[in-house]
Amino acid sequence: MFDLKGYLKNKGSIVESVLDTLLSNGTSHSLLSSMNYSLKAGGKRIRPILVMASRDMLLKEDVKDGSAYHEVMPLVCAMEMIHTYSLIHDDLPAMDNDDLRRGKPTNHKVYGDAVAILAGDALLTEAFRVLCRLSQHHSAEKVIEVIRYISKASGMNGMVGGQVLDIENDTVHGVTPDLEYLYKTSYCKTGELIKASVASPAILYGNVDDIKSLEEYGKAIGVAFQMVDDVLGVTATKEELGKSAHIDEKNNKKTFVDLLGVDGTKDLAKREVEKAKTAVLRYGEFAQPLISIADYIIKRSH
Amino acid sequence: MFDLKGYLKNKGSIVESVLDTLLSNGTSHSLLSSMNYSLKAGGKRIRPILVMASRDMLLKEDVKDGSAYHEVMPLVCAMEMIHTYSLIHDDLPAMDNDDLRRGKPTNHKVYGDAVAILAGDALLTEAFRVLCRLSQHHSAEKVIEVIRYISKASGMNGMVGGQVLDIENDTVHGVTPDLEYLYKTSYCKTGELIKASVASPAILYGNVDDIKSLEEYGKAIGVAFQMVDDVLGVTATKEELGKSAHIDEKNNKKTFVDLLGVDGTKDLAKREVEKAKTAVLRYGEFAQPLISIADYIIKRSH
Repeated sequence: MFDLKGYLKNKGSIVESVLDTLLSNGTSHSLLSSMNYSLKAGGKRIRPILVMASRDMLLKEDVKDGSAYHEVMPLVCAMEMIHTYSLIHDDLPAMDNDDLRRGKPTNHKVYGDAVAILAGDALLTEAFRVLCRLSQHHSAEKVIEVIRYISKASGMNGMVGGQVLDIENDTVHGVTPDLEYLYKTSYCKTGELIKASVASPAILYGNVDDIKSLEEYGKAIGVAFQMVDDVLGVTATKEELGKSAHIDEKNNKKTFVDLLGVDGTKDLAKREVEKAKTAVLRYGEFAQPLISIADYIIKRSH
Repeated sequence: MFDLKGYLKNKGSIVESVLDTLLSNGTSHSLLSSMNYSLKAGGKRIRPILVMASRDMLLKEDVKDGSAYHEVMPLVCAMEMIHTYSLIHDDLPAMDNDDLRRGKPTNHKVYGDAVAILAGDALLTEAFRVLCRLSQHHSAEKVIEVIRYISKASGMNGMVGGQVLDIENDTVHGVTPDLEYLYKTSYCKTGELIKASVASPAILYGNVDDIKSLEEYGKAIGVAFQMVDDVLGVTATKEELGKSAHIDEKNNKKTFVDLLGVDGTKDLAKREVEKAKTAVLRYGEFAQPLISIADYIIKRSH
């Protein structure tokens, strides 16, 4: 029986220790402090862990020691930096207007809106600088391919595009979303970055078929992740979530739960998770971490 | 006598025609529209023109036809995209709270704060995607060097760092800036991106000495540009500027003019422009556009 809890704890602590010293020198003390406040605020670290799990599967390695990830660490860090910047901007009063994240006051509550906006901008910019460090260990051609892939996944037709679809999903904008709209939103807003986390290592260590399998896996668990988020948004408490509950109701957003109910949404999430597991079946025992993470997506309570 | 007006018009129209079709397909119609609204809002296009001028000087070419810039066009576009994103975020209510930019309502006034924030995020992200296209014409190693250079210039120790220093320059934060603080702020906030515009082409077409000379040039005109901005901020009208005048006064910001007066600031700007011109003197006649642009920096009225 695969010990997912131990696996996540082990990989998570590798991520924490690297993020701890990633950003140290800064022109502005408050900017640096604001960036680190959110980057070091904990969280599940799912995206960086997926980078490591994907790498291990492709190289058929069972890694215990963090130093094995030296060559892929810039990618590990960049994915969490991009995710973190998106959370900071998402929480702003102009967006979701959330006061709580990971059990702590949101970035703008501590540093003010202006510095929070700029901390997000800087985390995104520095993520690309960090990605360039991959060239110490990989061919420059592959590194450019990774940068292109990640910028596409995070940009106007990826994560940011999905965030705008999500904003327009409210009564003010007059969008009454159907299932297709919610799928597209979730896929862009959540799925694209998760997809990039598992597929980018295949650019470095795999071939076109690996990229395709991991894209399928990433898309599916990304959408499932969002579906479970919607369920938890109505069933979990603020304490369980570490962020405000019922935020979608507050913002008049329609979610999968509005369309399919709690059970219907859970069923759909399960189907996506099955799709994800099928996509990596051919990697045999080395797919175990990715398969367990896919299962965990539906079982999580926060 | 070098015809700077004709030069800027010619190069500017090349920039306009490329930006016109740069961003076309978008997941969200309003996001795409918001990005293009600011990207196509005109402006002086100084940064992209500096990319072209620097390239021409290094290759000793006197270019008339826009097609000559094919190989450097991703860099031309990326610099303007990064500049535009910074303006959109800078104008937000949480930042400078400006209603007018280039004679038109600011992005958030048209699209709302949320979409404006995301349009800025997307422009920054897409800039890095566009930069990857350089690899069609240049070695992957050089392209990574360009991406690294530009991300450094735009990030926490570059432009964004400078923006935070600028925000903290007010009575609320209790900073009473001296000349050194204003220099550092201007250099980071304005100088770094201008420096990157002239020095990045040297990564593609020049050597270490070229990079050094162009960095000196870029830093100096960047700071001079900010000094002239401070002067225009108190002497020019809203109509001349195409944006709100006296905005620094309104925001309680101390500028070079507060410390040195209008004439003292103009003198210092002139000295910086001389420094810039000296840095490119050794390129002889091919430095003429850069020399004229440096002179223009102090003569401009908006």
